[in-house]
Amino acid sequence: MMEILVAEHAGFCFGVRRAINIAEDALKNLEKAGSIYSIGPLIHNPQEVKRLQEKGLALLEREEDLKENTTVVVRSHGIPPQRERELLSKGVRILDATCPFVKAVHDAVVKLSKEGYFVVLVGEKNHPEVIGTLGYLQECGGKGVVVESKEDIKGVLGKERVGIVAQTTQNEQFFKEVVGEIALWSKEVKVINTICNATSERQEDVYKLAPVVDVMIIIGGKNSGNTRRLYEISKSINPRSYHIETPDELKREWFEGAKKVGVTAGASTPDWIIEEVVDSIRRINS
Amino acid sequence: MMEILVAEHAGFCFGVRRAINIAEDALKNLEKAGSIYSIGPLIHNPQEVKRLQEKGLALLEREEDLKENTTVVVRSHGIPPQRERELLSKGVRILDATCPFVKAVHDAVVKLSKEGYFVVLVGEKNHPEVIGTLGYLQECGGKGVVVESKEDIKGVLGKERVGIVAQTTQNEQFFKEVVGEIALWSKEVKVINTICNATSERQEDVYKLAPVVDVMIIIGGKNSGNTRRLYEISKSINPRSYHIETPDELKREWFEGAKKVGVTAGASTPDWIIEEVVDSIRRINS
Repeated sequence: MMEILVAEHAGFCFGVRRAINIAEDALKNLEKAGSIYSIGPLIHNPQEVKRLQEKGLALLEREEDLKENTTVVVRSHGIPPQRERELLSKGVRILDATCPFVKAVHDAVVKLSKEGYFVVLVGEKNHPEVIGTLGYLQECGGKGVVVESKEDIKGVLGKERVGIVAQTTQNEQFFKEVVGEIALWSKEVKVINTICNATSERQEDVYKLAPVVDVMIIIGGKNSGNTRRLYEISKSINPRSYHIETPDELKREWFEGAKKVGVTAGASTPDWIIEEVVDSIRRINS
Repeated sequence: MMEILVAEHAGFCFGVRRAINIAEDALKNLEKAGSIYSIGPLIHNPQEVKRLQEKGLALLEREEDLKENTTVVVRSHGIPPQRERELLSKGVRILDATCPFVKAVHDAVVKLSKEGYFVVLVGEKNHPEVIGTLGYLQECGGKGVVVESKEDIKGVLGKERVGIVAQTTQNEQFFKEVVGEIALWSKEVKVINTICNATSERQEDVYKLAPVVDVMIIIGGKNSGNTRRLYEISKSINPRSYHIETPDELKREWFEGAKKVGVTAGASTPDWIIEEVVDSIRRINS
């Protein structure tokens, strides 16, 4: 008999689950013919985006579609306040599904700016969350830089008082190094640790699960950096690790002789896909 | 002809030079028969301590000697405020030669405590400077710990708001690691970088000088951690590196065929010893 162990923190993080719930609640009250727009895909999972699309959540493709009384869902990444004002000026109704942990980053940069700190946002320059946060920094008249690589730390040279925050999904090791480095160069550094523990929880689960199972299945977008990282960690511990997006990618030969199978999923993978994968594994091996 | 290059920042740091000057000024005005006490050796250099002793600076050995109108020099390390009050209560006259950079550490822990931070002092638990600083922390009702090794970071677990300062002579690499680690665990960290650059300046000089000379001479107490570190750096770059306390330790054979000799000294080494060493090297090779 094969045992299937699903990781404690597999799948949706708090912010993503919340955004989906907000969108679904709005879709329930939608007239049959209507549409709600999301600016960019609501989450990084094509299957879930498709499911929501069928219920009436459209991807905003043309600004002209933003008419009075249109409903727009702001996804968990958040948007710059300038963009929010622009939407409001068009008479659009906004459903704000910005993750509360992302709102905390917005609040942190504003607080640090008001306290006179030069702000360092450790994150990816082109990530929508970072672009949103920079909007808040600009809005309050603050100054700062995004640090994505060690090279970028140069931009902080000569700043005496530096305030540091992170993109919520920032890698902890890199954040630690940036903070340490800047603390040596500056007179005063204030760090507000805005890293969300969803990423590290999912990674810790893999460290616990991968060594005690025969096969590890990691579910999530092939283009999702966080899912790929889960797969890399798993593979380094257990060579019988496989990264899939959907259940039809599962192969019977992966499970030969396996007594225990571990399953986990990136933060954008909906529960229903995890359940389908678990069911498929069971079917293949029955 | 042999060339002797003395490192730019060889010998006394600002705080030590200032303490010696304060003591010497006081000694000038001393009546022939009188004494001024220092609590602990004024600096970590036996030759300089002996020189000052001959001028009338005695090492305080018994508390009973602290009578009214006795003069006491507080060395650059500083003392806890409780000890200062105790001295004043005995009617002792205090000459405060606490290094201004050390005073800045005292001010920093008080400031951080008042702002509600749990204080982390990165330093050596038994170092007089650390003991003095902890006195200021206690005085203002603050809470905190000394972090001397990575093990000690455990004492910070669960603290949400942490303020971090360093012993002035703290190793930068360790400070950086401690700050990074704590920033990951706490919600908010405020770092006031109180590391004095005297130590790193002396080390950088060795990195510059050791590779371009045939022989390196490092002067300073054999029991001085900072001088030993200068020697280790030098030795790793240039095998013909030698650590001495006094000129009579120099050996003719060290300089065989040498065209360029580099000389540096730890922060407790007086100029007159550096000069004697340079003179001796010249004599040996003339």
